[in-house]
Amino acid sequence: MTSGIYYSDYLQLDKITGAQELESEKHGHPAHDEMLFIITHQAYELWFKQILFELQSILDVFGDPILEDKKMGQVIHRLARIKSIQYVLIQQIDIIETMTPLDFMEFRDYLVPASGFQSVQFKQIEILLGIKRDYRINADKEFFHSRLSSADLQFLNELERKPSLLELTDRWLERMPFLEFHEFEFWKEYDLAVNKMLDSDTQIIKSNPTLTDREKQFQLNDLLMTRTRFESLLDRTKFEELRKAGEFRLSHGGFLSALFINLFRDEPMLYSPFRYLTLLLDIDELFTNWRQRHAMMVQRMLGTKIGTGGSSGHDYLSATTQQNRVFLDLFKLSTFLIPRADLPELPDELRRSLGFFFHGKKP
Amino acid sequence: MTSGIYYSDYLQLDKITGAQELESEKHGHPAHDEMLFIITHQAYELWFKQILFELQSILDVFGDPILEDKKMGQVIHRLARIKSIQYVLIQQIDIIETMTPLDFMEFRDYLVPASGFQSVQFKQIEILLGIKRDYRINADKEFFHSRLSSADLQFLNELERKPSLLELTDRWLERMPFLEFHEFEFWKEYDLAVNKMLDSDTQIIKSNPTLTDREKQFQLNDLLMTRTRFESLLDRTKFEELRKAGEFRLSHGGFLSALFINLFRDEPMLYSPFRYLTLLLDIDELFTNWRQRHAMMVQRMLGTKIGTGGSSGHDYLSATTQQNRVFLDLFKLSTFLIPRADLPELPDELRRSLGFFFHGKKP
Amino acid sequence: MTSGIYYSDYLQLDKITGAQELESEKHGHPAHDEMLFIITHQAYELWFKQILFELQSILDVFGDPILEDKKMGQVIHRLARIKSIQYVLIQQIDIIETMTPLDFMEFRDYLVPASGFQSVQFKQIEILLGIKRDYRINADKEFFHSRLSSADLQFLNELERKPSLLELTDRWLERMPFLEFHEFEFWKEYDLAVNKMLDSDTQIIKSNPTLTDREKQFQLNDLLMTRTRFESLLDRTKFEELRKAGEFRLSHGGFLSALFINLFRDEPMLYSPFRYLTLLLDIDELFTNWRQRHAMMVQRMLGTKIGTGGSSGHDYLSATTQQNRVFLDLFKLSTFLIPRADLPELPDELRRSLGFFFHGKKP
Amino acid sequence: MTSGIYYSDYLQLDKITGAQELESEKHGHPAHDEMLFIITHQAYELWFKQILFELQSILDVFGDPILEDKKMGQVIHRLARIKSIQYVLIQQIDIIETMTPLDFMEFRDYLVPASGFQSVQFKQIEILLGIKRDYRINADKEFFHSRLSSADLQFLNELERKPSLLELTDRWLERMPFLEFHEFEFWKEYDLAVNKMLDSDTQIIKSNPTLTDREKQFQLNDLLMTRTRFESLLDRTKFEELRKAGEFRLSHGGFLSALFINLFRDEPMLYSPFRYLTLLLDIDELFTNWRQRHAMMVQRMLGTKIGTGGSSGHDYLSATTQQNRVFLDLFKLSTFLIPRADLPELPDELRRSLGFFFHGKKP
Repeated sequence: MTSGIYYSDYLQLDKITGAQELESEKHGHPAHDEMLFIITHQAYELWFKQILFELQSILDVFGDPILEDKKMGQVIHRLARIKSIQYVLIQQIDIIETMTPLDFMEFRDYLVPASGFQSVQFKQIEILLGIKRDYRINADKEFFHSRLSSADLQFLNELERKPSLLELTDRWLERMPFLEFHEFEFWKEYDLAVNKMLDSDTQIIKSNPTLTDREKQFQLNDLLMTRTRFESLLDRTKFEELRKAGEFRLSHGGFLSALFINLFRDEPMLYSPFRYLTLLLDIDELFTNWRQRHAMMVQRMLGTKIGTGGSSGHDYLSATTQQNRVFLDLFKLSTFLIPRADLPELPDELRRSLGFFFHGKKP
Repeated sequence: MTSGIYYSDYLQLDKITGAQELESEKHGHPAHDEMLFIITHQAYELWFKQILFELQSILDVFGDPILEDKKMGQVIHRLARIKSIQYVLIQQIDIIETMTPLDFMEFRDYLVPASGFQSVQFKQIEILLGIKRDYRINADKEFFHSRLSSADLQFLNELERKPSLLELTDRWLERMPFLEFHEFEFWKEYDLAVNKMLDSDTQIIKSNPTLTDREKQFQLNDLLMTRTRFESLLDRTKFEELRKAGEFRLSHGGFLSALFINLFRDEPMLYSPFRYLTLLLDIDELFTNWRQRHAMMVQRMLGTKIGTGGSSGHDYLSATTQQNRVFLDLFKLSTFLIPRADLPELPDELRRSLGFFFHGKKP
Repeated sequence: MTSGIYYSDYLQLDKITGAQELESEKHGHPAHDEMLFIITHQAYELWFKQILFELQSILDVFGDPILEDKKMGQVIHRLARIKSIQYVLIQQIDIIETMTPLDFMEFRDYLVPASGFQSVQFKQIEILLGIKRDYRINADKEFFHSRLSSADLQFLNELERKPSLLELTDRWLERMPFLEFHEFEFWKEYDLAVNKMLDSDTQIIKSNPTLTDREKQFQLNDLLMTRTRFESLLDRTKFEELRKAGEFRLSHGGFLSALFINLFRDEPMLYSPFRYLTLLLDIDELFTNWRQRHAMMVQRMLGTKIGTGGSSGHDYLSATTQQNRVFLDLFKLSTFLIPRADLPELPDELRRSLGFFFHGKKP
Repeated sequence: MTSGIYYSDYLQLDKITGAQELESEKHGHPAHDEMLFIITHQAYELWFKQILFELQSILDVFGDPILEDKKMGQVIHRLARIKSIQYVLIQQIDIIETMTPLDFMEFRDYLVPASGFQSVQFKQIEILLGIKRDYRINADKEFFHSRLSSADLQFLNELERKPSLLELTDRWLERMPFLEFHEFEFWKEYDLAVNKMLDSDTQIIKSNPTLTDREKQFQLNDLLMTRTRFESLLDRTKFEELRKAGEFRLSHGGFLSALFINLFRDEPMLYSPFRYLTLLLDIDELFTNWRQRHAMMVQRMLGTKIGTGGSSGHDYLSATTQQNRVFLDLFKLSTFLIPRADLPELPDELRRSLGFFFHGKKP
């Protein structure tokens, strides 16, 4: 037990609240709003550190080939924590938007060429989640070389060699036990159910009285594409081709497991895996929200001007918003769902192994 | 398959957007802000309907003596949905607060004696959760008789006879299987661990150099009370006495089960029960937030004036905020936790029955 | 004074909470989540009604050639109210996202071809703000003809003939008194200041040691475009050409006034106009946020499937998010700001006419 | 123009993200959630610094006997910024609530006797706003002596000697020009209007068919108290007596000015003062929300245990929530409003001096 620990020492507040030096002041033209600019960015970096701390602990769990069952609840808890931090990251944009473009102009030039792009922690989060070099937009790839210090660049390069959460999740999904089990039969029956559903959708479009012929044709083509996609879903070779083309990031086995979990999420044993996948999807959505809000804020602040780091601001951010979707595959699962009523029956043995009881009987 | 269903017919928008009649207009003094007043209350009532719909489906599950394991995921999902609605209920207060007190005065008198107190759906939510007559403040009890139509009163009275979510949750907790199992031994060892912890706390206070003697005495008394409470926790007779005095609403067995679930929440089998209890606690907290925001809004609107229903407004609302805490017991659980390191070991057999596996081995 | 008004009668709750009929139930397959789907949409429609009510009152004020000064505070207050409603519209997406894709599938087919696109009130809001036919994406134009009832179509067509808030705001900006005043001189001096600033920016880029030659070229080109845009800003003919090409929606005079207000917003007399313009910009931003969240939610729900109304869902919504920016001009103002220090001095006479006093002297 | 400024240097990230040392680690029992505990508190302190920075700039403006009109817009803007920060402070509670009581227990004892109470910056905010020693609850007064280092204590004591925002606002209100102007006449007519309104309220209560006799009596007594309060409002001596008794913090003249601004807020010249007062009220409300959320979070974490600083946690925080309301007077204004229709006419000369024009005529 320590004696006499004091609040400001414990939190090292001398560092935290002593780390704000205004460039505008150094240049003899103190700009009131630069303080807000600094503190907002520092608050972001604090939260990035926390996200990284949680993320690393999750990667440690998933990096272990034997995933201890007790750990899954913890992982889920920590992902939910990351979500709660993301809500604050988004809310903080409302604060920065109280800075008007005219106020920003008073110190903006002093910051050139520093840029939010240079946030190593944010890049680190992206890489740990799964946004590695190959997935980045070209501007981003270039910036890695031209804007980062060589130490930062090297640090991030090494990070890219480690497996990301996307990769570890894929491996975990691939080795799911219930898919080896009677696998062939299940997906064969699923195929039948899918075809039944698509035939029905075709009828819906054809008999829709409010559509023009041109619209019907458009939609039937769309449906044809869906049918083709389903074929790729159930054919490993075709799936892996699409994957190479950038359509999917998960492996064929991983994607099918994720789909299975979504279809049978009410089975108690799949409850945690379903919640895990849903949280990954939520986190992807919240980062996208944040990027969208960020891009809009920059448009508000700069109009069509270039950013302090020399990027074209709003356009660059909009592009990364589209591209940097780590878990987009989980959104795409919806394409391949079929209604519960059409789902093939699970074999009894498998169903039993998915269930457990907490309702008044001894287990 | 239906043909030709139209958006506005499906949603019955003629009713929804045709149900706003301004009393101020009828009286020849149209007040612009009365529209906001009506629509905000109607939006609340829509969401109350949705909350009731979810709540009823949850009560149906818990009312069944055999709680099907597949249903637990659904219950949790729907409680989380209620939370998401509560966030909107709270957010809506920001809207109503754009009405200034002066604007409210322009139509307030026309509404007398109507009052938000008369929201039958809200009373219904309270009753289904577990705020029955006996737990209400006196003003509330009186209002039931004087402010509600006899039809509404009778409806609510009948509702009170049915078991509430609090009661059904208590019964479910009481029949938890893992507590019958070796029960006596576990709580005996827990008692030992508690005493060890309290002895340590006593030392912490005594050796705290920053406390005055008076403060130390105050805190040691506080600790003595805690020790007494722990004794009541582990003694059914004492616990039930406190319960009669209003200190607890859960039964002794129910409270111990809830505590056990919180202590061993990392065991996979307790994951869902833990999440269920946490959601009840969240919902209680969010309703309390909403009541607090509501009370503040009324203070802002009326100062110290009486409300349209004749209640003393802010004071009445503040009182119900304190009193109407359905799941306060779940907050009180924290009083009785001990650090993980001090927890007694669970017997192997019990531990095994709490675990299941989803990590690459066949179960 | 009325006697005996009752809460549920006043709010016509029989209509409000009696307007939920599940299509899935009619078809004999009741789907629990359809209730949520209906109620969420109804809550949206209630709030759309409130937004329209506020918007119409604002249009009435701006439609009057003499804008009474007392009314400006009211207009600002009501725009702020619309913002507070928009926050709830966005928050409500969290509720609808508690519906999983699989749950949606249970009743989705029963709703075909109804679609959120058919919300007449939302189209009305768009039109009143200023998104008229010409500005819509092609899919949207087509949908007007194929998806709306002829009564709804006619109603919206008539609405398009009335001046929108964008148009009325433009007229109000054009007749701003302080721009006629010494106008020529001010913009001439502004031109000089601009050129000084752009010359400085050129130096910044050229001397930035972290940029590659290619990047420098890219940014210098960007700057050249900015210079061209500034030339268009100060040349009515060029500006109107760009406007015809869709670059701007405000007239030359309106745009310059808006810029002037942003530059001299600290002058007390420009305080209200500045706040008015900022609120329009906020509202545009919040609708865009809402559209982005909406598009994401649809992606989550449908993947790449078509929507119930036959639209391609996520893609359609993403397209309208880009296109339906009513007050994008106000974001573009930032492009044309120059630092306060470089601003030309206002003539004394003009400055005096912009000021008033509330600081302890008799006015 | 600087060359080569780097993001991480500019933000001094070595300090910001290098200031987290876990006490639990030092004691050999690393507790994962202590990181969250530290970072959350550090984020709070960053934002406190920003609030203080804005607050100080506002105090500088109001401390000047001549309040430059250009400054008022700036003050309002910065108060709105403080509000946007407060929303983040509140949102951050959702993050800390992802720490469960059991997780907190793993490191809680290592922190004794440090306590959030020792946040000097937060105390500073309270004092600058107007919560000085005399207004604090007794526990708070004691804590100042026993828990703060002597340097911190001295710093805060000196701060108390300077005028707070409450005091400066009161002085500014007192010297409002339009109240000297015909003051006597206005409040005399107001008195008449008030009596008319109260007579009408008496009738409303007496003729309310839904009230029992007992309730009527209760409400008539309440009305009598209101009448007495109105008498105090218009009688300087009585008002100052109530002020001494703690009922009001503003002076008689200040309170009347605030009331006048609320009554005639639509007059353009009162628009900024009205917005200023509303923002003070909002800020008071948001700090109260934050305290309430904080108190609830502590209840959740500790149940009825004592806090690390030796305070009784939830009870202490609830008490300060009630007591530390700086601008409660502004809420109380609503008590003294009368409907617009009953308001006495303003003399033409005064009305003219309150108006200005921005609607198409030359000023």
